[in-house]
Amino acid sequence: VNSRQPHKTAVVLLHHPVTNREGALVTTAVTNMDIHDISRSVRTYEVDHYYLVTPVLEQQSLTRRILTHWAGGRCLEWHPDRAEALSRARCVSTFEEVKTELIEMYPGRSLEVAMPDAREIPGQKTYAEVRAAWEQERNAGIKVLVLGTGWGLSPAFHSEVHTFLGPIYGPLGREGYNHLSVRAAAAVILDRLFGAL
Amino acid sequence: VNSRQPHKTAVVLLHHPVTNREGALVTTAVTNMDIHDISRSVRTYEVDHYYLVTPVLEQQSLTRRILTHWAGGRCLEWHPDRAEALSRARCVSTFEEVKTELIEMYPGRSLEVAMPDAREIPGQKTYAEVRAAWEQERNAGIKVLVLGTGWGLSPAFHSEVHTFLGPIYGPLGREGYNHLSVRAAAAVILDRLFGAL
Repeated sequence: VNSRQPHKTAVVLLHHPVTNREGALVTTAVTNMDIHDISRSVRTYEVDHYYLVTPVLEQQSLTRRILTHWAGGRCLEWHPDRAEALSRARCVSTFEEVKTELIEMYPGRSLEVAMPDAREIPGQKTYAEVRAAWEQERNAGIKVLVLGTGWGLSPAFHSEVHTFLGPIYGPLGREGYNHLSVRAAAAVILDRLFGAL
Repeated sequence: VNSRQPHKTAVVLLHHPVTNREGALVTTAVTNMDIHDISRSVRTYEVDHYYLVTPVLEQQSLTRRILTHWAGGRCLEWHPDRAEALSRARCVSTFEEVKTELIEMYPGRSLEVAMPDAREIPGQKTYAEVRAAWEQERNAGIKVLVLGTGWGLSPAFHSEVHTFLGPIYGPLGREGYNHLSVRAAAAVILDRLFGAL
């Protein structure tokens, strides 16, 4: 239970549809570190669900094997904190499936898709704005934070998005370097939206 | 050049002296992901130096080999952003060496060692307090943020520390889960201290 707000929350890591360095539509590979680090950040910031999305069947079975491996036996015994964090993670084929699952789990709640982007897009809100808006909302909804891998989410995905969030900048703002790992970006985004002040 | 403050800054990732789950003094292994992710976060938040510290000679040569690999050739050509981030990273044997290097590089400046800890320790300051204190300081110093691996820095290290920083909490505060990866914690710490507001 998240003490600060009534919403249900999910982080979604998409491996498709994303772009490569040339802007072409690609499917990236799931990495073990993205499973572990983002699960731990999700758990720390009391996010309810973490979805890894890939259409590639082999990648799905590998991801599920890793999740199953940590859910029992000596892993559970020796690393209960790790097992607890990974228990919030699931692997599915498409973003459509994520939405269907969440709507079935939490019937009657509105679903808002928020997308942080390392590039600037017109209409992006600041993290403080979104944090305040979600805290003030009276009807408990489902808040879905979607993160892209590779060189970011394909513009084809933008039609799914209700709320665009801006790049994570260091002290130099837009003049600075802007190539955080998705693991680091996810942690900072969750801290800005949900961290204890 | 960090536009917000006059200090020189360094992040230090210690692989010794740290503790294991039983509290015993151990030396952890350098991981490739700690090199890459923390270099990128260091670069994003305009931190000047990133030191990986391990007394193990084989680990030092492996780390230096990875850093050299990314500094030239096709890596530099294909991943200039990555090469730029990794160019701030260095591997040394001891924390003593880190201090000696920094004092030689920036003669006449005071050196303040700040240590975030995932455990609560009496006298810890909040990130907002330290951010404000550093912003208000008139004399440009050297600010050294020390992070531990494993189950955290050994209490034997505490005599080196001037400023203790508290755990990174999610919305439930100290009642919540508190097992971020060091990569995620580093990103959040840098964002809280140096991120654009």
